[in-house]
Amino acid sequence: MSDALSHITLDQNGSTPLYLQLAQQLESAIHAGLWRAEDALPSERMLCERLSISRVTARKALDVLLAQKLINRTHGSGTFITPRLAMPLSRLSSFSDMLRGKGFTPSSQWLSRGLAEPTPEESLRLGLSPRDQVARLKRLRRADGVVMAIEHSTLPARFVPDPTAVGDSLYAWLDAAGLSVVRALQHVQAVNATPDMAALAGLEPGTAMLRLTRIGYQVDNTPIELTDTYCRNDYYDFIAELRR
Amino acid sequence: MSDALSHITLDQNGSTPLYLQLAQQLESAIHAGLWRAEDALPSERMLCERLSISRVTARKALDVLLAQKLINRTHGSGTFITPRLAMPLSRLSSFSDMLRGKGFTPSSQWLSRGLAEPTPEESLRLGLSPRDQVARLKRLRRADGVVMAIEHSTLPARFVPDPTAVGDSLYAWLDAAGLSVVRALQHVQAVNATPDMAALAGLEPGTAMLRLTRIGYQVDNTPIELTDTYCRNDYYDFIAELRR
Repeated sequence: MSDALSHITLDQNGSTPLYLQLAQQLESAIHAGLWRAEDALPSERMLCERLSISRVTARKALDVLLAQKLINRTHGSGTFITPRLAMPLSRLSSFSDMLRGKGFTPSSQWLSRGLAEPTPEESLRLGLSPRDQVARLKRLRRADGVVMAIEHSTLPARFVPDPTAVGDSLYAWLDAAGLSVVRALQHVQAVNATPDMAALAGLEPGTAMLRLTRIGYQVDNTPIELTDTYCRNDYYDFIAELRR
Repeated sequence: MSDALSHITLDQNGSTPLYLQLAQQLESAIHAGLWRAEDALPSERMLCERLSISRVTARKALDVLLAQKLINRTHGSGTFITPRLAMPLSRLSSFSDMLRGKGFTPSSQWLSRGLAEPTPEESLRLGLSPRDQVARLKRLRRADGVVMAIEHSTLPARFVPDPTAVGDSLYAWLDAAGLSVVRALQHVQAVNATPDMAALAGLEPGTAMLRLTRIGYQVDNTPIELTDTYCRNDYYDFIAELRR
């Protein structure tokens, strides 16, 4: 934490107001991963002392970060770094790898694993015939212990006859089985959290969540995976770079 | 409408159940734009007669499309095509051009246009100095008259000194002024509709909407545009193609 502050230099005579300079540099430090998810940010008082600024300047800088949801205030007990995962929307990335790359520790908690009859939509999306079964995997995905997302994956049972054999990373399991997903189509929607999802994710029922629906294809274009990921929207930052 | 049905051929002896065949082909016809937004879909009775299928089969096919929100039932007065705009998340596309390409008629309704002081976040994102003003443009975006999105754009006032001069397409105006946006970063979030937004978009307050926050850059990397687009989630289908 003191490391991060030692990188901050404010130009008292610059044309940009001090609080904006400070907000910008704290934002960079957060994006650079200098704090862990749920770490406390330096208090207003510490910011004033270390950076020789007024309390008003420190407060206004923190207000900018709060408005961007980069930090959150809990029970008036301090200001904490919101765990945020900047995810490019064009790369098929393993959740575990992404988190490790950002300095978070990933973990999964199984909610259920088993075989079932497919729904009509699953049959359509996975190109199943009527008698095919599917493997269903439901789990919570955590970063440093914080629930980031709820994930429901459905795969043709002929590829995953024993769903309990799948470990923490579905993609690692598929790779090892020679069933790698090489390409996917992802649909992005906003949904209101059901009471069940809200309880799992620690949210109020009805809170807007991002739902990513991914259909993953093997190298021969066979669809192998239909995954709905319900993301805590305050923890994810999905980014697309657009060109004309 | 009769055209679309004439393209549907069901294989009574196929291994895929008839209702799934029908759902799949109706879905293709909808995606191919054979009906306009808010057009009525053929009734169950018409589907039965034209395609020689049972009422149960027709009903089950429509249920699949309903579950995917490709169609909606209003006041029991029939089944209507939900206007849907499949948008690639990697292309910087003009809303107007996208809609025309799908056979919809785009239109805009101005909610407000004027000059204002920037918020701290706008100053950060657009790289403004403290005395700079911004042009703010707020409008509703429609497809065939249906409100698809609410859009709030902020641009440095030095580029847009007279916001009322901007016409239906902001990008066309910027192009004509030699201020083209060539690249953008887009953040995707889910938000609960405020009562104001809900009233504008014809939704219940609290309904989950997708918010796209786009920062558009000119060819020399100057940020010129900060746009929040609040999308009716049932009308948009944002798609990203992912590769490993």
